[in-house]
Amino acid sequence: MQPVLDYLKQNQKRFLAEFCDYLRFASVSAQPQHKDDLQACAEWLVKHCQQIGLSAKLCQTDGHPIVVAKTPREKNSRNPHYMVYGHYDVQPPEPLELWTTPPFEPRMAGRNLFARGSTDNKGQNFAHLKAVEAYLKTGTSLPCNLTFVIEGEEEVGSANLSKFLTSHRKELNCEAVVISDTGMPTPKHPALTCGLRGIIAFEITLHGPARDLHSGIFGGAVENPAMALARILGKVHDNHGHIQIPGFYDGVLPLSKYEREQNKRYPLTDAQLQKLVGSPQLFGERGFSATEQRSARPTFEINGLTSGYQGEGSKTIVPAWARAKITCRLVPNQKPAQIRKAVCAWLKQVCPPTVRLEIQAGHGAEAYHVSPESAPAQAALRALEKAFGCKPVLMREGGSIPIVNQFKNILGAESLLLGIGLPDDNAHSPNEKFNLDCFENGQRMSAYLWQELVKP
Amino acid sequence: MQPVLDYLKQNQKRFLAEFCDYLRFASVSAQPQHKDDLQACAEWLVKHCQQIGLSAKLCQTDGHPIVVAKTPREKNSRNPHYMVYGHYDVQPPEPLELWTTPPFEPRMAGRNLFARGSTDNKGQNFAHLKAVEAYLKTGTSLPCNLTFVIEGEEEVGSANLSKFLTSHRKELNCEAVVISDTGMPTPKHPALTCGLRGIIAFEITLHGPARDLHSGIFGGAVENPAMALARILGKVHDNHGHIQIPGFYDGVLPLSKYEREQNKRYPLTDAQLQKLVGSPQLFGERGFSATEQRSARPTFEINGLTSGYQGEGSKTIVPAWARAKITCRLVPNQKPAQIRKAVCAWLKQVCPPTVRLEIQAGHGAEAYHVSPESAPAQAALRALEKAFGCKPVLMREGGSIPIVNQFKNILGAESLLLGIGLPDDNAHSPNEKFNLDCFENGQRMSAYLWQELVKP
Repeated sequence: MQPVLDYLKQNQKRFLAEFCDYLRFASVSAQPQHKDDLQACAEWLVKHCQQIGLSAKLCQTDGHPIVVAKTPREKNSRNPHYMVYGHYDVQPPEPLELWTTPPFEPRMAGRNLFARGSTDNKGQNFAHLKAVEAYLKTGTSLPCNLTFVIEGEEEVGSANLSKFLTSHRKELNCEAVVISDTGMPTPKHPALTCGLRGIIAFEITLHGPARDLHSGIFGGAVENPAMALARILGKVHDNHGHIQIPGFYDGVLPLSKYEREQNKRYPLTDAQLQKLVGSPQLFGERGFSATEQRSARPTFEINGLTSGYQGEGSKTIVPAWARAKITCRLVPNQKPAQIRKAVCAWLKQVCPPTVRLEIQAGHGAEAYHVSPESAPAQAALRALEKAFGCKPVLMREGGSIPIVNQFKNILGAESLLLGIGLPDDNAHSPNEKFNLDCFENGQRMSAYLWQELVKP
Repeated sequence: MQPVLDYLKQNQKRFLAEFCDYLRFASVSAQPQHKDDLQACAEWLVKHCQQIGLSAKLCQTDGHPIVVAKTPREKNSRNPHYMVYGHYDVQPPEPLELWTTPPFEPRMAGRNLFARGSTDNKGQNFAHLKAVEAYLKTGTSLPCNLTFVIEGEEEVGSANLSKFLTSHRKELNCEAVVISDTGMPTPKHPALTCGLRGIIAFEITLHGPARDLHSGIFGGAVENPAMALARILGKVHDNHGHIQIPGFYDGVLPLSKYEREQNKRYPLTDAQLQKLVGSPQLFGERGFSATEQRSARPTFEINGLTSGYQGEGSKTIVPAWARAKITCRLVPNQKPAQIRKAVCAWLKQVCPPTVRLEIQAGHGAEAYHVSPESAPAQAALRALEKAFGCKPVLMREGGSIPIVNQFKNILGAESLLLGIGLPDDNAHSPNEKFNLDCFENGQRMSAYLWQELVKP
């Protein structure tokens, strides 16, 4: 390993210059006027992969192309095959006036490099490329066969990725997918994300009178659908934040003792979290820490409420209807379809006969979980510790990353989420940046990872 | 009385022609371009009052003028003094395209006269004028001294009436105010309205996080203000429609046995009411009929709900705040200030410490009630029965009529609400009309009333 590590150390200056070249492409996938920039960026990436010794090609899709690059395969190699996933497309940079310097002109400030796409995701996937370059250029034997899949549509929903995975299923068959597109809580807390929450979305509307009624003339003898909605949704939680819907917790994977121990090491206190969100006081399910509540426990949230009059002053009506937009965050082993069924059944049961209940189903996604005690996860944790020089933390993220389920469903492969972005990196915001310590440590993490993964 | 009744009978055709003259004035108080029409209408009314034998004058105000007309006072007369209140201003006629014929060109169809202002309120106050004309023109002794106060700003809030009442307090000192500006449920059910509900309006906002939060990242560890709002408002009613706020029913005047008996005669069944409002099922406080629930019992209603995302699809946020616009209808003897205090105290008590409660006070108005067993009310009921030839019903209206409280507070006078409008008269709507049977019976009711009021 020493030649690899030395190579990385010696070449940071050049890596940085190349990284800046990569960042100068305005590869904004959401904006049609940048179509050529995406194509140019993908072509640059193919060329760069070839220069470092990978066999690389551009795969056209119905949208932006996908870059596929492979390490040279030794004949009859029995080395395990891993995929490294990333994306070269970026979020729109607007509003431009909030950027200190133009988003596609990289700017160094201390150990931070500012540019759109720096942390999300060019810097993170480039770190993996630099690690493999070190192996190839130093002639160090790489114990794994690697395939890089770097797409150009992550920020617009990866619409063409599943078709690509399906048509390349054999070629992409692998032990696991390595993805650096999440985060770590502080520069001293490298992290393995071992879980993601799923979701079900729906909208409920309670229909009362045929039209808004004069509350003086009719109020008191007619059900007010907004009051009925409050009565129903007011029953969802008990006083301890536990959801009362029968069957809601069915299948919830309990937090293992190991994971709960690890969660205690997560470097964000309740006081810090409260300050961050600005709430008068935190609130969550009794028996779980805030970290666990927002990552490993399911939720039932109103995202929007609409009923009656919303303008200035008052309008004395019994509104004809009331609506709530709702999403439930799900956790590993909850089945979206089953939870949706349980919620609908409960709503129908508690809804009074004085209003008509309409439920409109929205999107759904399964949660994701990879056991942090599994061999690949433990290997990843060792790689993180060696690369960063400090003990990594386990994380579960509260949101979903749809591609992870695609890798599982289409390729049957688990994902190792080894994000090296920081909470203040301004992903999706003006003045996005990437920390160069994370960049360097990330390269080392990737280099160590291929070694650790093949240890028995 | 016979000469009075005969005179009324013989002069209907002329009355109708005069009524049409009255209706041709486009006395739309809300529209500045009709200022001259209001002045002209008031002047016509003064002249008409003088022609029928009243001493009448125009009282200018800061807005539209008030017409004051008095019956001739016999020297040293000890006759009791009653005020008759009405208004000559009308609602805007728009949308004009929905009128079958122009709003200020009266049109007869069967026994209905169509024109803006026909039922609200020109026809109703004109009936009273025709009754007194019959007394004066037949030389029949009128047992009461009457003062007509017909204002031109009722449809815009009677802003200048209280100043007028205050400055003419002595002159207007009276036994009671007779107002025909309400309704009767069917042509065969003349009605005395003996109660009106009051109101308190307010807006509550629950503030949670400092901004909308990503529900994946933070959901579960942070109070959702919309969920908290549902929990609070879901506690307002018990399962039987009874309001749970301590002190909310303090002071509520119980329905008398007499009034409850009378309420049973109100000609609208629950099935008819349900069909009218279009609700799947009626809902109200247990132990009271729908008629009582919507007129004699207080309410707590959400008039509007606003929180988070209201557009198409879903947005996965924990909203920063949630708001409910609320009005409570109050009933006789509930004090608005006291009920507001009770509601605020309860809200503060049940609001969790995880959100910040903001209460914004809106308008308030006292309920009104005149005992239907009092002598003037019983006299009014007798007059209604004699005039219409059928047994009248008692009503309470669920809304408020602010001027009634002005008469009580400024003049110390109770109001007798003897409306002769029908539910299908389209007051405030296109194709407003007035039923000529109501017009004629209303004249007779007024004629009888002055006799009945002086009976011991």
